[in-house]
Amino acid sequence: MDFQITARDSASSARCGLLSSAAGHIETPAFMPCASHAVVRACSPQDIAAAGIQVVMCNAFHLLIRPGSEVIQQAGGLRNFMNWPGLIATDSGGFQVFSLADRSDITEDGVSIRSPLDGRPIQVTPELSIQVQNQLGADIIMAFDDCTPYPCGHEEAARSMERTLRWAQRSKVAHNNAEQALFGIVQGSVYADLRRESARAIAEIGFPGYAIGGVSVGESEAEIFTALDTALPELPLETPKHLLGVGVPAQMIAAVKRGVDLFDCVLPTRNARHGLLYTWEGIVRINNAQYREDSRPLSQSCDCPACTHYSRAYLHHLFRIEEAAAWRLLTLHNLRFFARLMEQIREAIGTGNLGELHARMAANTGEQTGGEGGKTT
Amino acid sequence: MDFQITARDSASSARCGLLSSAAGHIETPAFMPCASHAVVRACSPQDIAAAGIQVVMCNAFHLLIRPGSEVIQQAGGLRNFMNWPGLIATDSGGFQVFSLADRSDITEDGVSIRSPLDGRPIQVTPELSIQVQNQLGADIIMAFDDCTPYPCGHEEAARSMERTLRWAQRSKVAHNNAEQALFGIVQGSVYADLRRESARAIAEIGFPGYAIGGVSVGESEAEIFTALDTALPELPLETPKHLLGVGVPAQMIAAVKRGVDLFDCVLPTRNARHGLLYTWEGIVRINNAQYREDSRPLSQSCDCPACTHYSRAYLHHLFRIEEAAAWRLLTLHNLRFFARLMEQIREAIGTGNLGELHARMAANTGEQTGGEGGKTT
Repeated sequence: MDFQITARDSASSARCGLLSSAAGHIETPAFMPCASHAVVRACSPQDIAAAGIQVVMCNAFHLLIRPGSEVIQQAGGLRNFMNWPGLIATDSGGFQVFSLADRSDITEDGVSIRSPLDGRPIQVTPELSIQVQNQLGADIIMAFDDCTPYPCGHEEAARSMERTLRWAQRSKVAHNNAEQALFGIVQGSVYADLRRESARAIAEIGFPGYAIGGVSVGESEAEIFTALDTALPELPLETPKHLLGVGVPAQMIAAVKRGVDLFDCVLPTRNARHGLLYTWEGIVRINNAQYREDSRPLSQSCDCPACTHYSRAYLHHLFRIEEAAAWRLLTLHNLRFFARLMEQIREAIGTGNLGELHARMAANTGEQTGGEGGKTT
Repeated sequence: MDFQITARDSASSARCGLLSSAAGHIETPAFMPCASHAVVRACSPQDIAAAGIQVVMCNAFHLLIRPGSEVIQQAGGLRNFMNWPGLIATDSGGFQVFSLADRSDITEDGVSIRSPLDGRPIQVTPELSIQVQNQLGADIIMAFDDCTPYPCGHEEAARSMERTLRWAQRSKVAHNNAEQALFGIVQGSVYADLRRESARAIAEIGFPGYAIGGVSVGESEAEIFTALDTALPELPLETPKHLLGVGVPAQMIAAVKRGVDLFDCVLPTRNARHGLLYTWEGIVRINNAQYREDSRPLSQSCDCPACTHYSRAYLHHLFRIEEAAAWRLLTLHNLRFFARLMEQIREAIGTGNLGELHARMAANTGEQTGGEGGKTT
């Protein structure tokens, strides 16, 4: 993997970049929708590419359970399996494993859980996570980390952060696929000293890119930014930075200003399936009775299949009857919005207008927030 | 509506036709997938048109319940509401009403039911059904008929058939939209004398087209063909004939040979959602473990989005995780098969090869049958 910074904002730490792998390249800042099970829910990979999405985030744990990482390896890796033309990242599965485990099931070795599919016991270790991710063959893979719960006392947060460091070291040793970039993960909960220490130590181990984890789990927006403000200065400037699980537009721009390059979040896709649509004219909740006879498109200024073909009245009807066709069309709308938002962010960095875009998005989409454990689907 | 016969088979009563309405024209024999709620489940109207489907069948009763026929009338009718480029038929809702009602709720006036949505009582009469269908604005609409249950004694079948005739007369009087063609419906259960009498009397009332109802409700294939053999000779030769609820490929060809022009059925769409796929090489049940690592497309000879983009292994995975994306891709595959099947039927009528195609399809798709009350979704 190669990362070239192509433009810098004079008023902030924001930058544009070109992230390249053997499979191609993407422009950053970039947003990755969740394709946890090797599919963005209700949509085909072809649909997602047509929306202008460059990269998706799959989940090692979900894919280990079904269809199994060997099946995907046999198929030539995730890109072939999904026939996806863009880049792919995989999450280590840490977050999902921890949501299934009791804290008492966590030892220095790893995490003991039972398969949600058939109840068979699985010992998930850094080595297993990396082996699975090597088999899946994504362009970017994540170290297996101890996802610190929230809220969490300083002492427990410190223990969890230190374990994450040891697991990062083991992840690096286990990694065995030169075509994949392994990202180290910063933890430390809401504690500035721990975030700083975590970032410093993870940078010392040394990775081609870094992710900020354990955010958007219920803490305040200010605490997310504190985590970034303390961690990012400790990480090598020229490497790509990924903020895990944050997808609120104004929060993403605030993070870009701090030097973040990559995002993943379920918000645009999950919100679409719940009828919350992003438009340049503001949020539309398509379930509202006011749209029952509204012949206008969701957004006049959007070129997605939902906006170019169907009325709000028709989408309202499809949503009310709980049609899978609605989930797809609304998901494609929100992803088109996110693809264009990231384009606008990159443009604004080039032209020095990021502050203006930030204010506009804060006003536009401010009424909905993230912070619901953004990494789950 | 205009119907021109453009070719006749020398070996049977099969014919090709051009059915035209103000909205455009379609080639017959034609198959209409069920879009009961103004949507083919899991697919967008744009998807369905791209599959080569010319006409869809919506349901007056479902649309009366949601979103309400006034909403669709306000939108300029179903074609505008759905933004559907082809022709549309609506079913009278008789079948759905009868599935909700007790036989004791049926009087000469109509059928008393409670709304499946909010429990409010609705008296469905021929006049209401036609009013709703006039508001929906489809090209072809159906008389409100008494759907004879199966099995049914001769006496009850006769009473039901006679009521259907009186309701057909009331439907014709109530019909008040010159741009729509109202089809009369033949009933008579499995009794040749009743089918003959029903067809004769319905032809005497006089309609621009006719449908054969009360078939594919559990009776044998031979009984379906007896119903056709006795009814069709009594109906005006040059009018279009619709066989309601039959969608088994070989049965459709057998019906075409008897002079049927139009079909509707849930089989291709419901089977797709249940993982049963039609291919020119035979039936594929995508849930089978044998497809887990199968990198081939569903069908080498199919040009649908599922076959041109994805492997059996990927579709198997999407189906196993119960993904709406699978329902859509598999539905589009089956509808593409049905669109091409109807093309081949029309071609075979022109070239005198219908018998050969019939034998081929009986061998190809013989293992699955209809007869599950094909009119429900």
